[in-house]
Amino acid sequence: MQAEAQVHALFKRASHNPSFFQVRSATQFAGPLLDFCVPVNPYFPPREMSDRIKEHLGEILKYYPDYADTHQEAIADFTGLPTECIVAANGSTEIITSVCRDVGGPIVTPVPTFGRWTDLPIELNIPIHFIARRKEHGFRIHVDEMAEKVARHKATVAVICNPDNPTGASMSFEEARELILRLKDLPLLIIDESFIDFSGIKSAASLALESSNTVIVKSMGKSLGWHGIRLGYAVANKQLAARMRKKLPYWNINGLASFVLKNLSEFRSTYQDSFHRIAQDREALFNRLRPIKGLTTFPSAANFLYCELGPGHSGPALRTRLLEEYGILARECGNKLGSTKAHLRFAVLPQGATERLGAALEECLG
Amino acid sequence: MQAEAQVHALFKRASHNPSFFQVRSATQFAGPLLDFCVPVNPYFPPREMSDRIKEHLGEILKYYPDYADTHQEAIADFTGLPTECIVAANGSTEIITSVCRDVGGPIVTPVPTFGRWTDLPIELNIPIHFIARRKEHGFRIHVDEMAEKVARHKATVAVICNPDNPTGASMSFEEARELILRLKDLPLLIIDESFIDFSGIKSAASLALESSNTVIVKSMGKSLGWHGIRLGYAVANKQLAARMRKKLPYWNINGLASFVLKNLSEFRSTYQDSFHRIAQDREALFNRLRPIKGLTTFPSAANFLYCELGPGHSGPALRTRLLEEYGILARECGNKLGSTKAHLRFAVLPQGATERLGAALEECLG
Repeated sequence: MQAEAQVHALFKRASHNPSFFQVRSATQFAGPLLDFCVPVNPYFPPREMSDRIKEHLGEILKYYPDYADTHQEAIADFTGLPTECIVAANGSTEIITSVCRDVGGPIVTPVPTFGRWTDLPIELNIPIHFIARRKEHGFRIHVDEMAEKVARHKATVAVICNPDNPTGASMSFEEARELILRLKDLPLLIIDESFIDFSGIKSAASLALESSNTVIVKSMGKSLGWHGIRLGYAVANKQLAARMRKKLPYWNINGLASFVLKNLSEFRSTYQDSFHRIAQDREALFNRLRPIKGLTTFPSAANFLYCELGPGHSGPALRTRLLEEYGILARECGNKLGSTKAHLRFAVLPQGATERLGAALEECLG
Repeated sequence: MQAEAQVHALFKRASHNPSFFQVRSATQFAGPLLDFCVPVNPYFPPREMSDRIKEHLGEILKYYPDYADTHQEAIADFTGLPTECIVAANGSTEIITSVCRDVGGPIVTPVPTFGRWTDLPIELNIPIHFIARRKEHGFRIHVDEMAEKVARHKATVAVICNPDNPTGASMSFEEARELILRLKDLPLLIIDESFIDFSGIKSAASLALESSNTVIVKSMGKSLGWHGIRLGYAVANKQLAARMRKKLPYWNINGLASFVLKNLSEFRSTYQDSFHRIAQDREALFNRLRPIKGLTTFPSAANFLYCELGPGHSGPALRTRLLEEYGILARECGNKLGSTKAHLRFAVLPQGATERLGAALEECLG
């Protein structure tokens, strides 16, 4: 089947997925697609914010966007963190790329994890060592494991995502505190909290401020419901934040992202409510998927669920069938370091969509 | 006067201007402002493109934007350059920052020029040497001058803007060819063509493809009429382009910029016409300003005019008076290396606005 081969080829991209736009052009499925692939807040932004953007679009785009200090103030205002400790970025990936361009390594990080944290060091020839997140431990990492691995490889950088993507495993605020304390002599400790808003776990940003070596990385696109907006930030002590900021381009935040940031405080309660609604949807999705035969579904603190196929089932075949027959996009994790072709990640969607996924999986795996 | 002091303080930013949004909040002028400060295409984008964006806004922003190869293809399609020689960027500033993070210098560049090319090397402690663009030579730089300065300082990088910002001075395609030939043994030669669309001069991109060391830098925001969109690119030979691309973040092009790129070819004739209209407006502005006493206005190949005040006039005072009394924003060039407080830059605007500026200047300088 030529079309299926085309779809397969599309997904052969190392470590990340093809863009939604590419998939939509390639699939044979005629109806609207249901995107369980990209985990994004479905309850934000509210219509009112989109309308406000449309109204001001000309002006938002015409002028150079504001400078870094304006964005830092907006993020400070929204998070309660000190302005001088914030580094605004064109998505968290800009922070990741900037950091990786400067560090010599070795880096230590648990896997599977967000692809940029594993593949970029490899592309840049930075030594990197992995700790396997084990199913038997609920994919959680013990502080001792991190400290031991760092010591053994004389690492200069440790990176951990909390919650982790794609496993959804997390550490508590207290564990983060312990990790920061134990690794206080490391040159650089990075905690990527891009999915923390969905978890109910308290951010370790307040601890980073007091530490000499800890950087919190935060994507905002996932929480805002808009990945295409490109907005993220880092939090670190004042000196470290200043050094990081110096490496980033002027006007790195586009006009639209800047406008959203400036208007965000007004929508605070809708924003916070959205995470509670997603937590309920996550529970519903978990309860719908857990009983399905041939599939093990793991608990998650993020807005996605990590699943493992039983023997005799192929992740890539299932992903392609879900897309071509059911119009369902799913993330097959075979190209993620530390994961396998037997693993899939499903974004948490509102509960109507949950049933469509559950039924499709039952048909495919039954 | 407190408000005036506030406006003065706002403009004390090193080398760049305060953002339009900051100025608008600070000024006492009650009416709509006339922006002669930021040189941007007033005849693009057409209403139809804005409407198309509004219609698709949700989807444009919801998903991760496309990958670099999709943007490169769109730029290749629009420019006729080979895809593999294009590096898509979050504005030309991302290219400038990325290059400056890697070069050891010394850098040689004529001044005055775009602030990021002078201030970023200084911030990053890269040795940099300047060639003064002299009024007597129409601010033009001779290839011999560049070659001699490069040799004298054993420079590894030469940067020249064509046309230059803020002087508007330019070099022809033949001069660019000669420069590339003369500096062929330099590790890196950068020609920043961010304003070339307004000049009628043929881009040197075709020469860069054939050279081992030449990079063309191109902002698209100025030409598109949308600085806030953040879009630019570099052109170099295939190997050099690949090396540059590797240093940039994934998803560095936001969803809106990506959408505009994909739709741009449909609006090609409107786009090209806009530059002819601006050339006519530039002539009208030049003819309106040239006879004004106390002001020397220089010819320009870009969408702005560089002017010098006669003795007894202060650029900062004039800038503040234009803003507070006439609602006119102008670029006073005192914070630009190689320029002075006696120099102003006025963007080319449609001819109705030209008369308002001319009359205001006559009143202020009369």
